[in-house]
Amino acid sequence: MGSTETGTAESGPMARALAEARAAGARGEVPVGAVVTGPDGAVLAACGNAVEAGADASAHAELLAMRAAAAGRGSRYLDDCTLYVTLEPCPMCAQAASLFRIRRVVFGAYDPKGGGVEHGPRIFDAASCHHRPEVVGGVREREAAALLRDFFAGLRGV
Amino acid sequence: MGSTETGTAESGPMARALAEARAAGARGEVPVGAVVTGPDGAVLAACGNAVEAGADASAHAELLAMRAAAAGRGSRYLDDCTLYVTLEPCPMCAQAASLFRIRRVVFGAYDPKGGGVEHGPRIFDAASCHHRPEVVGGVREREAAALLRDFFAGLRGV
Repeated sequence: MGSTETGTAESGPMARALAEARAAGARGEVPVGAVVTGPDGAVLAACGNAVEAGADASAHAELLAMRAAAAGRGSRYLDDCTLYVTLEPCPMCAQAASLFRIRRVVFGAYDPKGGGVEHGPRIFDAASCHHRPEVVGGVREREAAALLRDFFAGLRGV
Repeated sequence: MGSTETGTAESGPMARALAEARAAGARGEVPVGAVVTGPDGAVLAACGNAVEAGADASAHAELLAMRAAAAGRGSRYLDDCTLYVTLEPCPMCAQAASLFRIRRVVFGAYDPKGGGVEHGPRIFDAASCHHRPEVVGGVREREAAALLRDFFAGLRGV
């Protein structure tokens, strides 16, 4: 884990995203959290999944965080911003990152079943993708994956 | 054009989506409109693009319409609903349609540059796609395409 990417283990944007993921899990949401930081590293938005709360299948943590960051700046471009998210973005969120022109995507756990960056349609690799962020995967992967594993084990009652 | 899909030329959900597209264009948005109908054909939501208005790069007409329809029903599943949209959905919106479990997607103009259904990452064809709506493309294609063509010609001052 590069400290320049994530701060120390207990501070920094990925720690904040993990905290958002835990809070989401406590609300009965799939525990995924996301943070958008500006060019100076300041947190512009931090969100957890809110799919159940809002009856909104699109309310993934990273889409909410990008929308909040853009709204807060009054600009639909986040081209000097980094998105931190505890799980590999799905194709919807990867394409949204491209539409918001996010400069860099840092994610935690890889998602072979639902991911859209390193798996599935690999959104940023499509010839038709107009903006490709830098991508760093696997940051604090074990913690992010453990949160999800424990959540789904709990649902199954194991 | 099948009348069961779209009503008559001047009524029906695709006509309504085209009206939303025109209204969006008049607001300075890329002229795309979308409608979600329920199992009885009733309009649950109708939206135009609102990317500029809300500084929200994800505020595509069809994502807004699906969110509004789901919120109105208090359910994040739209598995008995049809999405009508004047332009082939981008990969973000196609994946959102899958997440909302939309039953059927009916679109107007094909979008070789930005589309994500028949072009680009072809979201519904990915092995990792968990829900594949029925897809009907090219409904009132010429009208939908003309709206976009005229809008972009206007921006270029031609």
